[in-house]
Amino acid sequence: MRVVDLIRRKRDAGELTREEIEFLVAGYTRGEIPDYQMAAWLMAVLLRGMTKVELAVLTEAMLHSGQTLDFSDLPARKVDKHSTGGVGDKTSLVIAPVVAAGGLLVPMISGRGLGHSGGTLDKLESIPGFNVNLSLAEFRRVLSTCGCALIGQTAEIAPADKKIYALRDVTSTVESPNLICASIMSKKLAEGIDALVLDVKTGSGAFMKKEEDAVYLAELMCETGRRMGKRVVALITDMDQPLGCKAGNSLEVEEAVEVLCGGGPEDLRELCLELAAWMFDLGGRTAGVAEGKKLAAEMIATGRARDKFREIIRLQGGDAAVVDHTGRLPHARHTVDVPSPADGYVAGTQCEHLGVACVVLGGGREKKEDSIDPAVGLVFHRKVGDVVKRGEALCTIHYNCDARLAEARQLIEQSYRIEPSKPRETRPLVHRVIGE
Amino acid sequence: MRVVDLIRRKRDAGELTREEIEFLVAGYTRGEIPDYQMAAWLMAVLLRGMTKVELAVLTEAMLHSGQTLDFSDLPARKVDKHSTGGVGDKTSLVIAPVVAAGGLLVPMISGRGLGHSGGTLDKLESIPGFNVNLSLAEFRRVLSTCGCALIGQTAEIAPADKKIYALRDVTSTVESPNLICASIMSKKLAEGIDALVLDVKTGSGAFMKKEEDAVYLAELMCETGRRMGKRVVALITDMDQPLGCKAGNSLEVEEAVEVLCGGGPEDLRELCLELAAWMFDLGGRTAGVAEGKKLAAEMIATGRARDKFREIIRLQGGDAAVVDHTGRLPHARHTVDVPSPADGYVAGTQCEHLGVACVVLGGGREKKEDSIDPAVGLVFHRKVGDVVKRGEALCTIHYNCDARLAEARQLIEQSYRIEPSKPRETRPLVHRVIGE
Repeated sequence: MRVVDLIRRKRDAGELTREEIEFLVAGYTRGEIPDYQMAAWLMAVLLRGMTKVELAVLTEAMLHSGQTLDFSDLPARKVDKHSTGGVGDKTSLVIAPVVAAGGLLVPMISGRGLGHSGGTLDKLESIPGFNVNLSLAEFRRVLSTCGCALIGQTAEIAPADKKIYALRDVTSTVESPNLICASIMSKKLAEGIDALVLDVKTGSGAFMKKEEDAVYLAELMCETGRRMGKRVVALITDMDQPLGCKAGNSLEVEEAVEVLCGGGPEDLRELCLELAAWMFDLGGRTAGVAEGKKLAAEMIATGRARDKFREIIRLQGGDAAVVDHTGRLPHARHTVDVPSPADGYVAGTQCEHLGVACVVLGGGREKKEDSIDPAVGLVFHRKVGDVVKRGEALCTIHYNCDARLAEARQLIEQSYRIEPSKPRETRPLVHRVIGE
Repeated sequence: MRVVDLIRRKRDAGELTREEIEFLVAGYTRGEIPDYQMAAWLMAVLLRGMTKVELAVLTEAMLHSGQTLDFSDLPARKVDKHSTGGVGDKTSLVIAPVVAAGGLLVPMISGRGLGHSGGTLDKLESIPGFNVNLSLAEFRRVLSTCGCALIGQTAEIAPADKKIYALRDVTSTVESPNLICASIMSKKLAEGIDALVLDVKTGSGAFMKKEEDAVYLAELMCETGRRMGKRVVALITDMDQPLGCKAGNSLEVEEAVEVLCGGGPEDLRELCLELAAWMFDLGGRTAGVAEGKKLAAEMIATGRARDKFREIIRLQGGDAAVVDHTGRLPHARHTVDVPSPADGYVAGTQCEHLGVACVVLGGGREKKEDSIDPAVGLVFHRKVGDVVKRGEALCTIHYNCDARLAEARQLIEQSYRIEPSKPRETRPLVHRVIGE
């Protein structure tokens, strides 16, 4: 088997066999196939596409490039949720304890912030002492003790994905639905889960700006998951404005705790219940999604989800008291309001720019090596459709350093569209459900 | 300027500016841009194409990656010919002395055999002592002394092409008309020529099997040459059967000498006159192609072309006596005939396989490191349309080693199509002329 022949076939829109795809993935992971050949193949895949069978085989080959976890000895069903990323999306912090409190196991391997979008690991690390770098043995111990554990990708999990992702990043081959699907699904299916709920974002703050692209990716992931014997559902959800009212690492932990305590903003609370409900349903914990939603609400109302969050934090080395005293989380030294330039209604936001403003403040990374300031971020006072008077705060900037404040403020000012009349319709939170 | 952005733009079928293309070529040649980024860009170029302006800029950037020769102090016009390669194509060996004898300068930088196709350098090296590795100073001296010099690509000429070509070879990005055009034209235009005649082959023994592909490449090269201020004409010529009656390095020198002495096979002689005629015309030596053809024929009839060939060989260190005593060329120890399996007419050949048979005998390279046996090859006794009786020789194999004789013989046997009736029409030698 010669790599050039496999590149040529894909270049000419042909199909590769299972053996050929496995040869490519294994050879590249072992360093036997050079970067330049893989780069040419990835570009050919991006431009020529893959069949559903090829995609499932690629995902499987990447999955089996490393260890796969096996929690089949633990009695409950294992479920997880994955979001394609957005601004203010802290649902994992709420859902993980809710679903674990409800009796399912949640072995969650999460990511860091990427571009304008935040990452669960960065948010968790704003909790003093919280350790996301557990070994796989510790991961199992925490999971079996409290029903949930939250870690980052380890060297043992899908090393092929790690290597391929790094190459895609520098060869402009990131934006391929097939390669995105294989990357996400290979990592998630290595977790040893029975079912997966996908939150595929669409709108100005999502990676998939157009709903049709989000739907296409969601369908690919559901189909790939099913081909590998997993129950998978995807919710296409709105990211045309930030989710909830806070963006920034410790601010988002704060807001997640508000929801776990029965409060928090309506949209965030609603989406958490919806996603948790599907996890309960797919995990066979409830007969249907409606019942799942009741169970999720009950876990919050009874305080059991909040207790579970304390337990997770404690088992992963963090300061569990933050759940009751969010003042213990890092806070920025300064705040400043961004006022509305006119009377009217918030007609829309350029949501990605609000995420970029957080990065500019230091809440995210511009280069991989950058460190993160957990305290900075934005608090939003007006959602789309809300009325606002000239001079009233649209949002408050939490910052520690003057250096790039002006840049962040300008991004935010340009992000809000204020119009004299109330927008005729607002986008629904959940656009559609795909896969069941 | 970021390489990923340039890859992305081409990936999305966008256009790159002059500065961006120059940045890519210069950065890659200096080793500042890694192979994997160039590989991704090349695949995007292959699949998305280039505008005419981009192609001219790419060619120019590759041309200027190294030294360009300047013979403007020499009084006569400088012209060259380039062939895209085929089986038995020894026209350069005839044309170079014919055109130099006719008063133009021919600074010819040629290539080695590639795949099933032979290379001028390999053929010249079958002449004992002939040195194709002249320095650029020696190249100039030979050229100014006798009006012609024949060398291989040096490290100084278009180093970008050398590096890019090596990468294309291992990333399945060879078959892009744009990249083929830039590769050929950047080297040819570095020769300091005023005009170029292209011999673009089409048919079963050519790289461009389909005439439309040959025409497309020819048009790209003519347009690119014109954009760079050169007179360029392309002849689309037939390669559905070997050119002339001999293939193999010293056998082809022998046949070139036959033509220079006024003999040789009709098709080879005719094509040499045609190509030389266009060189005389483009070089302003004759008023029109018809007059150029007369001049070329005269150079052969008077023996001046043959004298010129002797002079070139002598100046490049070779044994000039081979022109009068071809027995001094290396000859294979053994010969064996391949008989016709039936009475009938030669209806066609799988010409590429005849070229591969030469490679199998040792006359070409299967890997770059392979050495060449100059003596082996094939002598063809029947051309397409010729009548043949069962058992009569279709061709004679000249070989030195039994090891792979059977494989070569099988390739040859399968290459000839013998049919009971005479083929209704034979393909013309010159299909079309493009560019003037």
